[in-house]
Amino acid sequence: MSPTQTVTPQGAEILCIGTELLLGEITNTNAQYLAAELAKLGIPHYYQTVVGDNEARIHHALEVACSRSSLLLITGGLGPTPDDLTHAALASFFGVEMVEHPQVWEEILRKYGQRGMEPSPSNRKQAFLPQGATVLPNPLGSACGLIWQPRPDLHILTFPGVPREMQQMWQETAVPYLRSLGWGKEVFYSRVLRYWGIPESTLAERVGSLLAGENPTVAPYASQGEVRLRVTGRAPTREAAEALIAPVVEQILQISGEDYFGSDEATLASVVGELLLQRGQTLAVAESCTGGLLGQLVTGIPGSSRYFVGGIVAYDNRIKEQLLRVDPAALQQQGAVSEPVAAQMALGAKQVLGSDWALSITGIAGPDGGTPTKPVGLVYLGLADPEGNVEVHEYRFGSLRGREGVRWWSAQTALDCLRRRLLRYPLSGDPPQQGQILE
Amino acid sequence: MSPTQTVTPQGAEILCIGTELLLGEITNTNAQYLAAELAKLGIPHYYQTVVGDNEARIHHALEVACSRSSLLLITGGLGPTPDDLTHAALASFFGVEMVEHPQVWEEILRKYGQRGMEPSPSNRKQAFLPQGATVLPNPLGSACGLIWQPRPDLHILTFPGVPREMQQMWQETAVPYLRSLGWGKEVFYSRVLRYWGIPESTLAERVGSLLAGENPTVAPYASQGEVRLRVTGRAPTREAAEALIAPVVEQILQISGEDYFGSDEATLASVVGELLLQRGQTLAVAESCTGGLLGQLVTGIPGSSRYFVGGIVAYDNRIKEQLLRVDPAALQQQGAVSEPVAAQMALGAKQVLGSDWALSITGIAGPDGGTPTKPVGLVYLGLADPEGNVEVHEYRFGSLRGREGVRWWSAQTALDCLRRRLLRYPLSGDPPQQGQILE
Repeated sequence: MSPTQTVTPQGAEILCIGTELLLGEITNTNAQYLAAELAKLGIPHYYQTVVGDNEARIHHALEVACSRSSLLLITGGLGPTPDDLTHAALASFFGVEMVEHPQVWEEILRKYGQRGMEPSPSNRKQAFLPQGATVLPNPLGSACGLIWQPRPDLHILTFPGVPREMQQMWQETAVPYLRSLGWGKEVFYSRVLRYWGIPESTLAERVGSLLAGENPTVAPYASQGEVRLRVTGRAPTREAAEALIAPVVEQILQISGEDYFGSDEATLASVVGELLLQRGQTLAVAESCTGGLLGQLVTGIPGSSRYFVGGIVAYDNRIKEQLLRVDPAALQQQGAVSEPVAAQMALGAKQVLGSDWALSITGIAGPDGGTPTKPVGLVYLGLADPEGNVEVHEYRFGSLRGREGVRWWSAQTALDCLRRRLLRYPLSGDPPQQGQILE
Repeated sequence: MSPTQTVTPQGAEILCIGTELLLGEITNTNAQYLAAELAKLGIPHYYQTVVGDNEARIHHALEVACSRSSLLLITGGLGPTPDDLTHAALASFFGVEMVEHPQVWEEILRKYGQRGMEPSPSNRKQAFLPQGATVLPNPLGSACGLIWQPRPDLHILTFPGVPREMQQMWQETAVPYLRSLGWGKEVFYSRVLRYWGIPESTLAERVGSLLAGENPTVAPYASQGEVRLRVTGRAPTREAAEALIAPVVEQILQISGEDYFGSDEATLASVVGELLLQRGQTLAVAESCTGGLLGQLVTGIPGSSRYFVGGIVAYDNRIKEQLLRVDPAALQQQGAVSEPVAAQMALGAKQVLGSDWALSITGIAGPDGGTPTKPVGLVYLGLADPEGNVEVHEYRFGSLRGREGVRWWSAQTALDCLRRRLLRYPLSGDPPQQGQILE
């Protein structure tokens, strides 16, 4: 590899071009994606800049970025309209001509043709790149990017602003190119350990000195009730990085107990699904204040029809009585948001829908409907087991989380209750029990 | 107002400080929030920069920003830990000392005391600001910001990185301060017109020359099936801005017909709710592939218990037969994803749950389960009306949107079908019809 092919360790800069970012009309998720990808490759990254669709200001941003960074990743401004200036601004900044790449134009004609359409004359400009740049192909759209080394110590890659196109171009072409330059020789490999039902600070204290490690690193995050530990190892190969983090992951799992529910892409709903499949058992739900959210989370998992039979959204008390067989006296005396009603909803769902397990949720999501004794955020979760036993848990999620927050916490907490109960429920080799509908 | 108090029109720059942004661990929503707020105030804004928790690089970013911007909004780096450097870096960059503000420390003591806790010694540093800066109070947390005019032509405001704290400080203190400097004299007032069932390009063509207007401006956006037109007027007062946009909004509404469903915060679910309330009628749902999402959307509206009675999530065909009374022969011959099953599900929900209207959804959400004749994305929506008539619509949403996409489009499209049907259903002065449960 010649010296001009190896990038100095000065670092990468992400430059996002688009007036819509300056008007606050969209969130800059491209910068986050590329930043995380740079971290995975071990490429140092010190600055991000956003600038609008204005040639003079793009020139200024390029001047600043090219003086402090050796790898410039640019997104946006590659479309066919007059405000798409990125490639032309790069050419004028470095004082070169724009050159047509006929194969890009043919590719645009082909893509439009597939959809039975013709490109407009303005698309033609998308086939022009600064002299010396090569095409960074876009398999999905008409806006190709470029790979260019305008100076020995500077590499520039451009991508369209459309996240899906940018991401595919990054993975298919940019990553191999950067690896060929010598970057990404160290692999960063992470596992994310996921927790429910434990505060971030408590988990951090339990994990203790592991948080101070340098390789692997252990970092806690919290969002919407879930707490995560990200364990990241750095090594020459993925296998070596995996081997590096394995004992730390093992150590954390031994410390952290049942609050840990799964790793990486696992969700409470997917873990509950796996536990049910292992036991050959089925689930039904009865929802009041969540209005269908619990069923939606359960059925968000592909293949959930193997263990989820269905649900009853009993918003009106009539439905609780007549479909879920809740005792009208309980509704009248204790109210719809009460322990006995939650219990009867769970048992009713199990019986009427013919499942092994059933979860029920009844609560006050707000903003209205709270009273001093039954405030907004009060929620009862019922859980009926295969033997027909039922347990009810009372939660007070408060009013600060808002209606959507109370509903989210209720549904997730219900899944967590079932998860913990399933962990203690014996595995059996029997085939799935065929529930009987008792109608 | 003295000249040094009026900011030159050089523009604002947003500088976000935090290594977590450079690692791609969080999305930079603060930049979007502040950018949108600057646009509302009419403050020109040309650059955004992100830099990590490193004093030398913060200095470099300040050097660049102070040379091209006259208002610097800085977020992040105000916490008590050693990597929180923002105020110290500002002091060293401008060559001034850090000065303690005793009232800030008292406020921190008070806030911790309220929660029965004591601050750690490291919190003390949060009471120090560069000499000459004044406190920008943080009503929620311990990290106060600053307001500082280190040079006649430069105003700096700092905020913590926690979005809720930053936003409250922005609204309560920063906006009045910027207005006192002469900014925000023109009010920007927008209305958002929302559409379902029309492509962005078609709507843009219909609106035509209005898109070229300068005041008010009309700008189209599309996301997840919904298309929006934002009409923005600029005037000295809100009333004047409202008057400016009113005729344009009127003109657009006359052009755009029934695809328009509501303005500003309206959703398809909220509009359906209003139309039902106006007619004193109720709704029930029967869901298969959406698993509860339709019910969740309907019940996401506060007060939806006035018109939503409940739903049945019939994931398993047993439930379709036994709870929704779908003909087993139809299930066997035409399959669960078919026109007759959708029709029977809607009628079954209306009858079993005792509502005026009922919506049903049955489809193939994927990723598995598709066949050549019934591909992933094929969805049937059923709608039963108060007279017991039923209509079924077939949709092919394709597989590219993914499982969540097919579910989202199905539920939203079902709401849109009901909305269009309700628009044509006469208003009556009768009290809500009490549905009969036919069990």
